[in-house]
Amino acid sequence: MGFDIIDVEIAGESHSDKMVLKLSGIERGGEFSARGIKSMLNRRKSGAPWTTPRIESDEPSFLSGIEGIRGETSLEDGKTYRANGDVITAVVKNTNVKKADYSNIAVVPRPSHADYVQYVKDGKIATGGGRFSGRLTAMLCIAGGIAEDVLEKEGIEVVAYVSSIGEKKLRSYLGGADVSGLSKSQIERIKYSDFPLLDESEREETVEYIKQIASSGDSVGGTVECIVLGVKAGSMGENLFSGLEGKIAYSVFGVPAVKGVEFGLGAGLAGLKGSEANDAFTLKDGEVKTATNNSGGINGGIANGMPITMRVTVRPTPSISLPQKSVDLETKKVCELSVHGRHDACIVPRAVPCVESAVALALLDELMLQKVTNGIYND
Amino acid sequence: MGFDIIDVEIAGESHSDKMVLKLSGIERGGEFSARGIKSMLNRRKSGAPWTTPRIESDEPSFLSGIEGIRGETSLEDGKTYRANGDVITAVVKNTNVKKADYSNIAVVPRPSHADYVQYVKDGKIATGGGRFSGRLTAMLCIAGGIAEDVLEKEGIEVVAYVSSIGEKKLRSYLGGADVSGLSKSQIERIKYSDFPLLDESEREETVEYIKQIASSGDSVGGTVECIVLGVKAGSMGENLFSGLEGKIAYSVFGVPAVKGVEFGLGAGLAGLKGSEANDAFTLKDGEVKTATNNSGGINGGIANGMPITMRVTVRPTPSISLPQKSVDLETKKVCELSVHGRHDACIVPRAVPCVESAVALALLDELMLQKVTNGIYND
Amino acid sequence: MGFDIIDVEIAGESHSDKMVLKLSGIERGGEFSARGIKSMLNRRKSGAPWTTPRIESDEPSFLSGIEGIRGETSLEDGKTYRANGDVITAVVKNTNVKKADYSNIAVVPRPSHADYVQYVKDGKIATGGGRFSGRLTAMLCIAGGIAEDVLEKEGIEVVAYVSSIGEKKLRSYLGGADVSGLSKSQIERIKYSDFPLLDESEREETVEYIKQIASSGDSVGGTVECIVLGVKAGSMGENLFSGLEGKIAYSVFGVPAVKGVEFGLGAGLAGLKGSEANDAFTLKDGEVKTATNNSGGINGGIANGMPITMRVTVRPTPSISLPQKSVDLETKKVCELSVHGRHDACIVPRAVPCVESAVALALLDELMLQKVTNGIYND
Amino acid sequence: MGFDIIDVEIAGESHSDKMVLKLSGIERGGEFSARGIKSMLNRRKSGAPWTTPRIESDEPSFLSGIEGIRGETSLEDGKTYRANGDVITAVVKNTNVKKADYSNIAVVPRPSHADYVQYVKDGKIATGGGRFSGRLTAMLCIAGGIAEDVLEKEGIEVVAYVSSIGEKKLRSYLGGADVSGLSKSQIERIKYSDFPLLDESEREETVEYIKQIASSGDSVGGTVECIVLGVKAGSMGENLFSGLEGKIAYSVFGVPAVKGVEFGLGAGLAGLKGSEANDAFTLKDGEVKTATNNSGGINGGIANGMPITMRVTVRPTPSISLPQKSVDLETKKVCELSVHGRHDACIVPRAVPCVESAVALALLDELMLQKVTNGIYND
Repeated sequence: MGFDIIDVEIAGESHSDKMVLKLSGIERGGEFSARGIKSMLNRRKSGAPWTTPRIESDEPSFLSGIEGIRGETSLEDGKTYRANGDVITAVVKNTNVKKADYSNIAVVPRPSHADYVQYVKDGKIATGGGRFSGRLTAMLCIAGGIAEDVLEKEGIEVVAYVSSIGEKKLRSYLGGADVSGLSKSQIERIKYSDFPLLDESEREETVEYIKQIASSGDSVGGTVECIVLGVKAGSMGENLFSGLEGKIAYSVFGVPAVKGVEFGLGAGLAGLKGSEANDAFTLKDGEVKTATNNSGGINGGIANGMPITMRVTVRPTPSISLPQKSVDLETKKVCELSVHGRHDACIVPRAVPCVESAVALALLDELMLQKVTNGIYND
Repeated sequence: MGFDIIDVEIAGESHSDKMVLKLSGIERGGEFSARGIKSMLNRRKSGAPWTTPRIESDEPSFLSGIEGIRGETSLEDGKTYRANGDVITAVVKNTNVKKADYSNIAVVPRPSHADYVQYVKDGKIATGGGRFSGRLTAMLCIAGGIAEDVLEKEGIEVVAYVSSIGEKKLRSYLGGADVSGLSKSQIERIKYSDFPLLDESEREETVEYIKQIASSGDSVGGTVECIVLGVKAGSMGENLFSGLEGKIAYSVFGVPAVKGVEFGLGAGLAGLKGSEANDAFTLKDGEVKTATNNSGGINGGIANGMPITMRVTVRPTPSISLPQKSVDLETKKVCELSVHGRHDACIVPRAVPCVESAVALALLDELMLQKVTNGIYND
Repeated sequence: MGFDIIDVEIAGESHSDKMVLKLSGIERGGEFSARGIKSMLNRRKSGAPWTTPRIESDEPSFLSGIEGIRGETSLEDGKTYRANGDVITAVVKNTNVKKADYSNIAVVPRPSHADYVQYVKDGKIATGGGRFSGRLTAMLCIAGGIAEDVLEKEGIEVVAYVSSIGEKKLRSYLGGADVSGLSKSQIERIKYSDFPLLDESEREETVEYIKQIASSGDSVGGTVECIVLGVKAGSMGENLFSGLEGKIAYSVFGVPAVKGVEFGLGAGLAGLKGSEANDAFTLKDGEVKTATNNSGGINGGIANGMPITMRVTVRPTPSISLPQKSVDLETKKVCELSVHGRHDACIVPRAVPCVESAVALALLDELMLQKVTNGIYND
Repeated sequence: MGFDIIDVEIAGESHSDKMVLKLSGIERGGEFSARGIKSMLNRRKSGAPWTTPRIESDEPSFLSGIEGIRGETSLEDGKTYRANGDVITAVVKNTNVKKADYSNIAVVPRPSHADYVQYVKDGKIATGGGRFSGRLTAMLCIAGGIAEDVLEKEGIEVVAYVSSIGEKKLRSYLGGADVSGLSKSQIERIKYSDFPLLDESEREETVEYIKQIASSGDSVGGTVECIVLGVKAGSMGENLFSGLEGKIAYSVFGVPAVKGVEFGLGAGLAGLKGSEANDAFTLKDGEVKTATNNSGGINGGIANGMPITMRVTVRPTPSISLPQKSVDLETKKVCELSVHGRHDACIVPRAVPCVESAVALALLDELMLQKVTNGIYND
């Protein structure tokens, strides 16, 4: 499966020499900035006390697809680039590879990790997770950074943030609130934060909470919310299998550890009556808007002009140092496993740019498709 | 967007003469039964006291794609059919079309319905919802019935049921329980029920609850759970954008009114620690299984051999007869709207076969793809 | 395989009740005329003395995809229609079905016909050719008629004609001549002719030649040339697998009986030196043009602004009444076969609208794709 | 556009640092040899007296997609590799890049080259042809080498050779001859020859002919024939847009300089009567075969069990050192151009492995598709 116009493929492994991104379908002349890509990668980076001590520079270099580049080219700060219509190819090196960490898990799969399915498919468990490693999302963030910049030229902003960690509910924009007023400066603040929250004042306590879990040898899940501003009514999505929710969800489930995607009030809608859930129409500065946004900006699969809002469930990382039951796949015996590699106790903040990237790619693809199939662009 | 091998397209409208299904990619020789398709359509049918009084026979006839048929052919009870490798084309007539019902909503969009986006795209609101009507899901159920029968030959069973209506939580198989033991007869009972529940004893009270909401002029949402048995470890899904969750979610969001899709414990995973969420590996009759199934049978995007489980949020139907605020799109004035057409107070039971169909189509597509790309089939 | 944006599927058989066309991807609001579709179908029709005596009215009716239609709708002469963005579904009835004709060929395959491969795949030979019958090209012509009308709004004209029948070479525009000057009235004349030729004076003799072959119980092949005017330099095609020639060829080989596709001088280029084959650049009214057009309007896979020209080889129809050697597939014995059904002695003139349709669909698809991926449309 | 299961993308330019191949869809566990890939690349290499003096080592290194590789890995002679199911990524460095050669053609496009369309699309002409350079076919040959090896395991052999250079007609297997008997050793000889001919004795004279043209500053075209052995009747292709000819032609036109593709007798069929063109069925060792093979192994879009045969027209290289008329695109003045870079006087022999690669990729894709959609594989 794939998008309609854009094609993203990511190859490589956590412990291979290089990871590769291939991105095709970006319009020739489409502009993107070093800043856009780097801010994505920076937010995705480890470094916080509860993240893996494996620090990687994640410096992408481009082999093709950018105007004027001929050799393997790194991004220069402050510079803007233009797609040349060819396939965009980028590589990121894996520099900090320590093989010893993972030695004892070769035949004992980590519960809820991809180890077991890998073993079944490939006959072995790759060191460091192989192609199932979270490392590969660096490549997704490069693609997402490009997509976000192109969307921005069309007046569309995508922004995501952490809305809960474990039992801690944080400030959220879902639940019907009007987020149209999210200011440019608020968006900027979130985009360049390594712990993106709507309410900065919640940061300290949340960080403390994660640290405790980290020190206990455990991990914790959470939710990421994503808001999209500037999508015009009728400009994206269609009925049934051409719906906008399906395209976004397909893309977001491409981010490892995502186990749920809900739009608007999401699961909350199941418990409501129509009279409670419906978003009454109203006028605002002469334009048709809805008083609430329980629908998350999408009706009948089509953008209705309100902010598109969604919540994404991120499961706790499966790799924990607490002892767990598993099975030795060679001896076929139940055994106990403690994972002593380099792990994140909480990947939710690092999942934020990944979700944002997945959403941006889906929206850019849909925008391009609708430009040629949906008459409203030709008036 | 679309699947990899299978292509489903549905055309027509709620008030057009005929609706059309086009289904390609089903293997030549693939068998399906009149019973499979008809049980899907029967479960989708209205008829319960809280459903629309628009009763349609939903008798499909096939124009192409079935061995031995030459004319427009109806399904004969008890008969089994074989795909001939050509595109399968089926039509269903709309017979019970009353135009008067919808007359006053032509320029006043129903809140949270597709009316408004239709108006923006098409310059008008189609009577009865047009291509956004739930009627079109009859065509989805035909495709789904075919897919389910083909999957059954491969040992794969898909079964869905209602797990909550509004605030009423009903018996659920999610939450980590082992559903592997769901018996053939339980599956059969659910498949042929017009109100599919895990626990039949909850039916009466639930029906009563819906009737009350119906009589109050309101509607109510709910959740549908879907369980898939028989998918072998490693046989479906791959990493990132090739993940099984993304393919299933894409398909399920194709069902109108779906606003959330979660796998395994779903949103519940966000609040847990790794030590609580992880599914410990164990041995059962010599085979590797997990003690719990919080992951919903999927790790790293790949089926792990446990039942695939998911929960789907179905929003309350937007059409209610209680008065609501809307906007007259011609005069651009806020106004009040009461919808007096033929509506369902609760579509959750009718959504069950639609979800099942969407899941079955996604799985069959993935099975076909993996058969040629995933070496495990060649051993 | 399929195009990038547009999807065409044709289902049904020569002797089934109805044939079905499914066409998706046409832009909402795209206009097409009854005249465009009907002229395609008329040119494809039999009726000439050397064609099959099976006369079909080929009256298409539309089930979906057209603004304002609700029931099964026929085209009204003189009327223009608009795509509503939904899948376009059309059916054509097979009315003149005589089964007796084909009775003796059930197990003896006609040489060079699809009979044998059908038998291998399906275990039987369908009466009248089944899904391999030329009848199905009626559906292609409907799709092509729509595509041509949409292209015409973009200033692009597609026109095809017969350029040889058997050994008779007819007037041709290939060979480097500048066809830019093909006048609107010449195009119109060819478009509405049942025997489209560049030089009308060649008609009588050619018809006589075919009649002789028909009366001898034999059949004859020929070539169709197709010219496309109005494609702007740089507006279609890209390098390698994204080339314009590949997309057009894929489509044209979809027409039964086509065995060769060449662009510009085509096979003639193989025998030339670069100095003879190259099209020197020149200026014409200030615009860059080429003095000759041996390249057929395409360089490096991209339209160069000159007319796109191609020649298509149409094999002689395999069904002839002269006795031929074949094999009885049941008894596995060599035998002699004479086919006494209703056949065309020469399908070349009837292939003209089919080729035109295939080319128009490929070009419209490419135009749509390039509009969103090729920066030149945004200046 | 692209194939159904396999996806090939090639990025980079003649003068960029590296060219990139991305190949997805190869079955996990699929085996291919260093020898297969290298023999493709070797045949494609320059080195003969009439080829460009730009000699490149064309040593591919793989970044992903191969079992057991972690770093950037070169192929070891004599070794066999296995696809690991991930995207296969390979790079080839451009080492011998001389920019001076092309300096004077920056604004004066070479007639019939992609220079002009590049200028229109990109606003400039890339040194060395950029993404339109024949250099990129090295990446195609890597993909083709892999595809050929996988096909060989299925009993399918693809072999191509030069069948004419300019006016010199060389030994050909088309024209109805039975090529089933092409021996393994003949195939091997052709596969490892740098000037692949059916009849080796024609080599010397042909080489002399090309040298003369080279020394005159001109170039010359020719034809390549390709034969495929081992494709079972009914195992590939379907009707209309799913035909085997369309898929192969799409792929072959992806090779730069190809201007025509014909199957079986090809253009020769246009001049024949049915009685002359039809391939009579006969029995050979109890199997149904045809006495001649004018159809090129394909009827009704489907392989009929006979060798698949085709002829491909390769135009003369546009870059010649003889003076030609062109237009200065800046000053908009007609001028004279002589190209003094490094060019091939005849690329026909070097096109042979490219055609073979394109055919192999198309066939492998079709084989995979049919394995899951065509019931004959399940008996």
